[in-house]
Amino acid sequence: MDFDLDLSIDVLERSPATFRALLGGLGEPWARGTEGPETFSPFDVVGHLIDGEETDWIPRARIILARGPDPRFEPYDRFRHRVRNSNRSLESLLAEFAELRAGNLELLRSWKLTARELALPGEHPGLGRVTLQQLLAAWVVHDLGHIAQTARVMAKQYRDAVRICPCSPTTWRPARKVASASPQQRSGTERVAIFSSVGLARWLGYGSPQ
Amino acid sequence: MDFDLDLSIDVLERSPATFRALLGGLGEPWARGTEGPETFSPFDVVGHLIDGEETDWIPRARIILARGPDPRFEPYDRFRHRVRNSNRSLESLLAEFAELRAGNLELLRSWKLTARELALPGEHPGLGRVTLQQLLAAWVVHDLGHIAQTARVMAKQYRDAVRICPCSPTTWRPARKVASASPQQRSGTERVAIFSSVGLARWLGYGSPQ
Repeated sequence: MDFDLDLSIDVLERSPATFRALLGGLGEPWARGTEGPETFSPFDVVGHLIDGEETDWIPRARIILARGPDPRFEPYDRFRHRVRNSNRSLESLLAEFAELRAGNLELLRSWKLTARELALPGEHPGLGRVTLQQLLAAWVVHDLGHIAQTARVMAKQYRDAVRICPCSPTTWRPARKVASASPQQRSGTERVAIFSSVGLARWLGYGSPQ
Repeated sequence: MDFDLDLSIDVLERSPATFRALLGGLGEPWARGTEGPETFSPFDVVGHLIDGEETDWIPRARIILARGPDPRFEPYDRFRHRVRNSNRSLESLLAEFAELRAGNLELLRSWKLTARELALPGEHPGLGRVTLQQLLAAWVVHDLGHIAQTARVMAKQYRDAVRICPCSPTTWRPARKVASASPQQRSGTERVAIFSSVGLARWLGYGSPQ
């Protein structure tokens, strides 16, 4: 799928409501669970997205559009939110994210970007040359990645609740093979299918599907 | 995290609104994109969740609660939705899912399940003995897995839009190592971090993080 500014904004605009639906008023056990040390909880994800609104996507787009002699992006601090939000509630972060995102998309729309502007380059500290279009596409993908992460982290909190037996990893098959699997293979596949058809078994630590 | 019926219902209740926020009114390129042959689009995911409401979770819970001599579950058809929904709109599926889920949760609440009932067993065709509690936990995990899948499938539609260079897989590092990485490693890590901090690079086919 080719980059499209309107289709990108359509996705970016949804994220606050998606996080609100998934996390608004959610109990602490779900909201604060992680995947282990140095990993994000759903609460952390929302804080990280706020950091992105304040210090990443639009600030970097501004650097590109300024067309200065050195369009180098500021390095991005992935852990800024930890200190910033230590006393905040999830509710207030969800509201803040929605407000920041709405303002940033209003600004983005107001720029009425042309194909020529979308092709302008910036300099990423690690990646090198990045066009404005690639930056905006990455913003979309970044949002979606963190929605997926949030759902995955929540699912993992029920790792023990769905564990039925100390299954042998060799009995697992990827769910996508169900259609063509032999009857014998199917029973192995079912093992995955009850919990998820998207490889969640692997996330939950039942061993890698073969 | 131990199984908790109220906390489970709290998550199950959110899914229709989460899918509505993520997919309601979404353009075809996002809604119909897949990860390849025999994989689900966001449209397919909603159809699959409707199948779950009609033929999986509550019907299996009923089998368990009936305490009959053979509490064996009917096998579940993961592709029932394909024929069923071939002429449907995404909007109508989202509305139907919300209605079915609301009804099923009303029923689930009305059962006022006790710890004793939650421990009652059913017989899964592939997994063997499964308690009602494990079935309900799996329902929660299944929802979350498909939310994650939907966001991932959407992100993959922008695979080419975010591709900057044919990067060497050896330069990738998992984002979770950022905190402890050396300055030299950091530049490799940044490569992941711009697109996602959740392993999206791997999903997008840039090679496995080391």
